[in-house]
Amino acid sequence: MKTYLDCIPCLFRQALEAARMAGVSEETQKKILDKVAEILPDFPLTSPPPEMARIIHEVVKKYTGVEDPYAEVKKKSNNLALSIYDKLKEKLQNSHQRLLTSIELAILGNILDYGVKNSLDVDKELEKILVEEKRVIETENNALFNYPQFQKAIDNARTILYLADNAGETVFDRILIEEIKNMDNNKNIIYAVKEKPAINDALIEYAYFCGIDKLAKIISSGSDAPGTVLSRCSKEFLKIFNKADLIISKGQGNYEALSSATGPIFFLLVAKCPVIARDIGCRVGDIILMSHTLNKKGGE
Amino acid sequence: MKTYLDCIPCLFRQALEAARMAGVSEETQKKILDKVAEILPDFPLTSPPPEMARIIHEVVKKYTGVEDPYAEVKKKSNNLALSIYDKLKEKLQNSHQRLLTSIELAILGNILDYGVKNSLDVDKELEKILVEEKRVIETENNALFNYPQFQKAIDNARTILYLADNAGETVFDRILIEEIKNMDNNKNIIYAVKEKPAINDALIEYAYFCGIDKLAKIISSGSDAPGTVLSRCSKEFLKIFNKADLIISKGQGNYEALSSATGPIFFLLVAKCPVIARDIGCRVGDIILMSHTLNKKGGE
Repeated sequence: MKTYLDCIPCLFRQALEAARMAGVSEETQKKILDKVAEILPDFPLTSPPPEMARIIHEVVKKYTGVEDPYAEVKKKSNNLALSIYDKLKEKLQNSHQRLLTSIELAILGNILDYGVKNSLDVDKELEKILVEEKRVIETENNALFNYPQFQKAIDNARTILYLADNAGETVFDRILIEEIKNMDNNKNIIYAVKEKPAINDALIEYAYFCGIDKLAKIISSGSDAPGTVLSRCSKEFLKIFNKADLIISKGQGNYEALSSATGPIFFLLVAKCPVIARDIGCRVGDIILMSHTLNKKGGE
Repeated sequence: MKTYLDCIPCLFRQALEAARMAGVSEETQKKILDKVAEILPDFPLTSPPPEMARIIHEVVKKYTGVEDPYAEVKKKSNNLALSIYDKLKEKLQNSHQRLLTSIELAILGNILDYGVKNSLDVDKELEKILVEEKRVIETENNALFNYPQFQKAIDNARTILYLADNAGETVFDRILIEEIKNMDNNKNIIYAVKEKPAINDALIEYAYFCGIDKLAKIISSGSDAPGTVLSRCSKEFLKIFNKADLIISKGQGNYEALSSATGPIFFLLVAKCPVIARDIGCRVGDIILMSHTLNKKGGE
């Protein structure tokens, strides 16, 4: 997805939030915004927003000296999400369509996103997910929630590359991966996280902490952008990306980075901002399970 | 009120919206954002946001060649607000506290603001105002809705300067001014609008169109900022400002411009953005009727 003009105010907002998360003075926060104002005009809008976000968060790191401004909130997200793991499993036990329910939960976990909102009440959001029942079913357009096609894609895939999004959300990913493994333990699942801190995106240690290692091979994409921007990924990762039978792409950042890429990709996300919603052709808040093919036809 | 760092992303958003309202190409929209990025770092944050907004909207005018991008929406706001004038009067007839109700309506009319929201469904907002009943009473902090003090100030004032905010809102101002004149026809009311287009702010012709001329003397403040920034006002206006027994300041822009000024000012507004809400010490959506004195103690 290209960077829309609406992304520009939002990128300033992100820079300010990250600067505050890093705990620096107002003066330094202002310097960061000024630097963003200086570099942003030269940024090509044909590049996806996570690429610009990466540059902005580099500025924040440089000016604040804080490598990972979201360290604390990510830790909290992981802990809180893990603390409701049993409840999520219980929800699954009571479901008559376990795969569908696990997909829904994996997508709903995508709400734990600091890139979109300035403040996020993780407890409250998790509470909402637990009482969430009919949200997915309410999505009217089946092409945007193409469960049958996704189910088939999982059935047919031997190697699945799972692109993680946010910390905490990893626990919800685990629920879906466990379900896929329950169906067929021979499936080879690779769980790819970011190489370095990028907003509140998941990192290798979180994937271990949330118990993904028992189910999938954990790798880094090599990228430190808050989205799998292929030009920033490692050769090793690209090899896996190009060979995978199915790519499960979680979240807005990965959608933004990969909506123009080729491959057997499914995008699983909550459309959290109006720009994404317009790009996809859905409403803000919609739960999306969309094949890449659809995006090629209906998207950008 | 100073310009907060949170205002910066919002000012970019405003520039983009105004550029779109002017109907220019994406390329020109981008040029406008780039220009804003160029000038914004030099803007002193000690100045109030309407001063920066003024500069930004000057850029928009220059790059688009459109003097008044909001001309159409302002016309629509005026017409729609006028079309419900009779219903507003009916609401007043049924009230046991006519002055209070007219104040509430005048404040609720402040919802018609394009400076805060990117899109505004005027019909819907007006509909909400008509069914609005308990909103004001729900405001917990009486200092932030100090009706007794305001009532007394009106009683004691001979010359009242009424600082208008948005187009359409003028009809709601008329309701309050009519009520004040009903109470005492000898009161001298001066209704001040902006000199030139500033977002969707009211102009002289709208004040006439909405029937203010039958009740008050209509003047321009001399300013083209979306708020009464005193340093940009005419000498004639400042003379009136300094001599008035009571100044009724409507809306966020005027609050931002005048919260540090001296004078017998009352601020009547809906707190529509988190920055204003924080500055005032209220919640977003609160209905504010606050004397300047309170602001001096509790504000900035």
